[in-house]
Amino acid sequence: MPTAAARTYPPAAIDTFIAAIQYDTQGLVPAIAQQHDSGEVLMMAWMDRDAVAETMRTGRVCYWSRSRQAPWRKGDTSGYIQILVDLRVDCDGDTLLALVDQTGVACHTGRHNCFFRAVREGSLQTIAPVLVDMSDIHKE
Amino acid sequence: MPTAAARTYPPAAIDTFIAAIQYDTQGLVPAIAQQHDSGEVLMMAWMDRDAVAETMRTGRVCYWSRSRQAPWRKGDTSGYIQILVDLRVDCDGDTLLALVDQTGVACHTGRHNCFFRAVREGSLQTIAPVLVDMSDIHKE
Repeated sequence: MPTAAARTYPPAAIDTFIAAIQYDTQGLVPAIAQQHDSGEVLMMAWMDRDAVAETMRTGRVCYWSRSRQAPWRKGDTSGYIQILVDLRVDCDGDTLLALVDQTGVACHTGRHNCFFRAVREGSLQTIAPVLVDMSDIHKE
Repeated sequence: MPTAAARTYPPAAIDTFIAAIQYDTQGLVPAIAQQHDSGEVLMMAWMDRDAVAETMRTGRVCYWSRSRQAPWRKGDTSGYIQILVDLRVDCDGDTLLALVDQTGVACHTGRHNCFFRAVREGSLQTIAPVLVDMSDIHKE
């Protein structure tokens, strides 16, 4: 269970934050999700303007699924949600950093984070275990 | 001064890693730079195939500058380099995570990382101090 309280923002703050973002030509901005206490980088996904607003309004992290071309409230299918702890925008306004409290696992493969492939002993290897069998859960 | 030893990779491992990457339509992949020991997310920038190869060959993190449309060896102008500690690719192959040892500051504003703007008390505020006067250094 998440231990952090969800951070939500009033409408005026959301508008101000959204105005600071430089969206790409598809109206999207990359958002890095980092576990707020351990510092673990969990994943990177994309937000559109509505996803940023919904994330800040509700304290539940939402993205835009490029593969499905649809809004994606993280965890609606898997149950593994991200509670928003803080949301930051970078110097150029073109990348977001969401500090979150991740329930369960962040990766659709059942691993705790998505960055589990690296070179070891000359070959590309899997460096993190599957913690949850996601075969029964619709792929996020 | 960086304390970590630079990680470099043999040509075959570089080829294998590069083959696992899904580049976007512009031939780029987003790369998150994270300080290897503290877990601080320093910045996000873009790599093309050559930048990935050069990073892995030399152990010095290199990007592709979209604004300049040119290769960008981080720190060549400022002196604030990133030593590669580990390079990871995510589940979908479309985002990289570089664990680095950052010399000095990562952000062209002179702050330690680029994610220094967040909502505080209802307005967008700067939450990290300028550590280095970058006015004498060509903007990276």
